[in-house]
Amino acid sequence: MLHKTNALFQQIYDDLCRKIEAGEWKENEKLPSIRKLADELGVHRLTVFKAYQLLKEHQKVYVKEKSGYYVKGELAISHHPIVAAYTQRNHLSEIHQVPAAYQFSVSLIDPNLLPNAYFSDYVKRVFDLYPKVLGTYASVQGDEELRTALANYFGTTHRFQVNSEELLVTSGSQQAIDLLAKIFIRPRDVVLVERPTYSSAMDTFRQHGAHIKSITIHPYGYDLDEVEHCMKVYKPRFFYTNPTFHNPTGYTVPPSQRKKLVALAEQYHCVIVEDDPFRDIYFYDAPPSPIFTYDTDGHVVYIRSFSKYVSPGLRIAVIACRMPLMKSLLTAKSLADNGTPLLNQKIFLHYFLSQRLQLHIAKLRTALWMRKEAMEKEMTQSDWYWEQPDGGLNLWVQLPTYVSMKTLLQKAHERSISFAPGRIFDVDGEFHSWIRLSYSYMNERELRTGIAQLIALTKPEIYV
Amino acid sequence: MLHKTNALFQQIYDDLCRKIEAGEWKENEKLPSIRKLADELGVHRLTVFKAYQLLKEHQKVYVKEKSGYYVKGELAISHHPIVAAYTQRNHLSEIHQVPAAYQFSVSLIDPNLLPNAYFSDYVKRVFDLYPKVLGTYASVQGDEELRTALANYFGTTHRFQVNSEELLVTSGSQQAIDLLAKIFIRPRDVVLVERPTYSSAMDTFRQHGAHIKSITIHPYGYDLDEVEHCMKVYKPRFFYTNPTFHNPTGYTVPPSQRKKLVALAEQYHCVIVEDDPFRDIYFYDAPPSPIFTYDTDGHVVYIRSFSKYVSPGLRIAVIACRMPLMKSLLTAKSLADNGTPLLNQKIFLHYFLSQRLQLHIAKLRTALWMRKEAMEKEMTQSDWYWEQPDGGLNLWVQLPTYVSMKTLLQKAHERSISFAPGRIFDVDGEFHSWIRLSYSYMNERELRTGIAQLIALTKPEIYV
Repeated sequence: MLHKTNALFQQIYDDLCRKIEAGEWKENEKLPSIRKLADELGVHRLTVFKAYQLLKEHQKVYVKEKSGYYVKGELAISHHPIVAAYTQRNHLSEIHQVPAAYQFSVSLIDPNLLPNAYFSDYVKRVFDLYPKVLGTYASVQGDEELRTALANYFGTTHRFQVNSEELLVTSGSQQAIDLLAKIFIRPRDVVLVERPTYSSAMDTFRQHGAHIKSITIHPYGYDLDEVEHCMKVYKPRFFYTNPTFHNPTGYTVPPSQRKKLVALAEQYHCVIVEDDPFRDIYFYDAPPSPIFTYDTDGHVVYIRSFSKYVSPGLRIAVIACRMPLMKSLLTAKSLADNGTPLLNQKIFLHYFLSQRLQLHIAKLRTALWMRKEAMEKEMTQSDWYWEQPDGGLNLWVQLPTYVSMKTLLQKAHERSISFAPGRIFDVDGEFHSWIRLSYSYMNERELRTGIAQLIALTKPEIYV
Repeated sequence: MLHKTNALFQQIYDDLCRKIEAGEWKENEKLPSIRKLADELGVHRLTVFKAYQLLKEHQKVYVKEKSGYYVKGELAISHHPIVAAYTQRNHLSEIHQVPAAYQFSVSLIDPNLLPNAYFSDYVKRVFDLYPKVLGTYASVQGDEELRTALANYFGTTHRFQVNSEELLVTSGSQQAIDLLAKIFIRPRDVVLVERPTYSSAMDTFRQHGAHIKSITIHPYGYDLDEVEHCMKVYKPRFFYTNPTFHNPTGYTVPPSQRKKLVALAEQYHCVIVEDDPFRDIYFYDAPPSPIFTYDTDGHVVYIRSFSKYVSPGLRIAVIACRMPLMKSLLTAKSLADNGTPLLNQKIFLHYFLSQRLQLHIAKLRTALWMRKEAMEKEMTQSDWYWEQPDGGLNLWVQLPTYVSMKTLLQKAHERSISFAPGRIFDVDGEFHSWIRLSYSYMNERELRTGIAQLIALTKPEIYV
C-alpha cells in the first residue's frame, strides 16, 4: 500500500526536521517555497503546506508575512568545528553497544557454532604458501585468486556468469552498502527500500543525504504495482532489497516476482541492489536464485556476505556488478581503505575452497533450525504473532497492541534482555508493536529462559 | 604566498566545471547569481564574473540576457542509473595500477625489508590465546587491549596523554582520512591542505564535496601569516597536515610552529587533522613531537598509521581525538565497515608489544637511509634539484623547466619506469616540473639503474 497523504506530509515534516538539524539551512535562512518543494518532491502543494504548518507548530520555523518560512536560530547546528556537523546515527549499532545477558538484538551467529577449531590450520597454510602475505598490500579490487574462486562458485551454484573482473572484495557487507551509497547517492536523491528494512542500510543512505521511500514487503513478496508506481513517480537511484530470508521479517520474494523486478528496473532505469547475506541459512529447500541471475542489462548489483556464518572475524564480502559501475566502485574503495587486507582474503580463500566449508554449513543449518524451533516452541506460550521463516537468523514478531514499546524496552533492559524495536527498521519509524528477535546468538537453554522472561514482560497487567 | 586573483578565478572555474560534470546543476538549470556566489565564497564579484566568462568561452554554459548563466545540456551527466553519478578519481591509485619494473611512484616499503619471517609465530600465539578470534566481531571502536597498549605507547614515547576511549582503530590511515571527511565535510565546506599535499587525501575531500584551499609548505615549515589569513578568511572545517617528513616533500614543520598552529586553530575554531605515518622513519634525530602534544582544547585530531613499516597486509591505523568527536567517529566507522577485523588487531598487538618491533624499526631506518643515499648519489649525475629529507620515503624533485611532463611520463612508461607527477599533489594542478620519487620499494641496484635511465630521459636533447 502506498503512503496516504496524511502520512506523506508527516514524512516530509520528518525529513525537513532532519535537514534543519543537520544544518542544511542556516539560522534565519529561508526554506524553499511551498511551490518549489512540492514540484521537487512531486507532491501536492497542500501536502507541503501541511508539513510547513507542522514545523511552525513545533517551533522549528517562523513565518515572515508574504515572504515564507525561516529556520529558528537555536535549531541550526553549532558551527564550533570540534562539534562535527554530523548528526547521523546507527540505530542497531547503538543497541548492540548495551551489554545484555539475553541478546535477541544481535543478528550474529554464536561463536560456539563457528569452525574455530581448525581455522588455525588454514592460517598456517596461508603463511607457508605466501610467506610475505603481511608485507603485501592487496590490490584495491581484491585478491585475484579469491575473485576467481568466487566467480567459479557463483557460476556453479547460482548459475550466474561473472568473471573475476566483475567482482570487488569488500570488508564485510556494511562496507559494500556504504560504497554503493557513495557512488550512487547525491543529496536529495531518492532511494527505495523495503518496509521494514535493514536499519543500518537505511542509516547509511541517510548519511549520504538520500530521501528514502519504502515498499512494503509481505510474506508473499511485494505488490509489484507499488514497486512500479514508486519507480515511476520517485525516479529512485536504486532499490535496496534483501529478497531472501529478508532482514528483519524472514520473508522471501518468489522467483516470478524476481524476474518481473528486473524488467521494472530496466523499464524505469532503477538499479536493484540485492543484499544476500542469509542465502546459505535455509531450513528446508534452497531459496530461489538471486535476482542478479535474471539480469541481462547490468541493472542489478549483488552483495554477498560470507563472513556472517563462516568467520565474522575476517570480514569478507563481495560485490558483483557489470561494467562500467566497477570503475566507480574501485575509486570509492581505494578512497575508503585502499583494499581489504590480503591476509584475511587468503585465509578465507583456503577455507572457502575446502570440503569442510560445506560440512560446516550443513551442520550450522541444523543447529540454527533447532534454536529457531526451541524459541518458537517457547513463544507458543505467548499471544504474539509471527510468520515462521524458512531461513535466516530472525523472527519478526508482533506484540499485542496494549504493549507500550517504551515501557517494554525499559523493563527488558532492567532484566538484561535486548531486542530490536520494529520502528528502527522503518523509514517512518512505525511498526510500534513489532520487534525483531534473533535466535542465532544464544544456545537453546538461554533462548528459552530469555523468551519466557520477555513473555512475562508483555502480559496485559503490566500495561494497565 | 596566497593565490592571486588571476589564479583564484581559474580555481573557481575549475570547481564549477567539476560540479557541472558531477551534475550538481541539471541541464538548462541556472547557476547561482554572481552576487550570491561571490558572497558565498567570500571573493570579489569580478572574480566570479571572470570565472563565468571563462565557462561561457569554453562552451560550458550559455547566457540568457538579464537572467543569468545556464548549464549547457550535453554537459549534464547522464541520468541512466547504471552510470553512477560519480566522477571522483584517485590519482595515485590510478598510477599504481600500471605495472612498472622501476617503481618510484609507490611510497611503500619493499616487502623484503619487512619482518615476514617471524610473523607466523605471532599469528600462532594469537590463535592459542584467542581460539575464537575468527568467530568474533571486533567492537566498532577497536580491540580494548590494543587501544590500551597504544594509549600507553603514546604516553611513553610522545608524552601525550590519551586514554583508550580516545582512540579509534581504523583499517589503515586512508580509512581514517575518509571517516574524518565524513563527519566534518558538507558540500562546499572549505578544507585547508598543504601545497603540495598527499593526493589521495585531497581526492577524498573532493569526494565529500569540499572546496579545497592550500597553504604552501616550505623546507622551514609554513608562513604562519598565510595560515592565519586562510583560517580567518575561508573559515575551513579543518586543516589537513602531514608536518613530519611530509608527503611528498619530506619537509618537517619545526616545534615552534607546531605550538603556534594550535593557538591559531583555537583562535579560529579550525580543527587540525595531523596525519603522521612516517614518524618512525627518521635518519638522524627523532622528529619533533606531534602537534597533538600541544593541544589542550580538543582542536587537534591525530592519525597514526603503523601498517606502512610493520605489516601493510594487516592495515592498522589509529585516530586519537577528544570527546565529543569520538561519538560521531564511532557512528561513521560503524556505517563504514562495522569495525576493523579482530584477527588483524590481535596479530598487530602482539607484535607491537614485542622487543622485535624496536629492533625491526632500527634496522629498517638504516636500510632506508642506505637506499636514499644510493638514489641521491646517482642523482648527482643530473641537474635536478631537491632538498635532502631527514626521514620518510620520498624525494621531491624539481626537473629542468624544459622537460615536458607529458613527454617524460610517456617515455618513462615505455621504459617501465613509474613516478608520481607533481601536479597530482596540488589542488591547482601546478608543480609542472616537479616529481615525487620514492626510494622505499626497490633495492639499491634497482634504484641506481632506474634513476640512471630516468636521468637520460630528462636530457635537453629529448625536448628540442
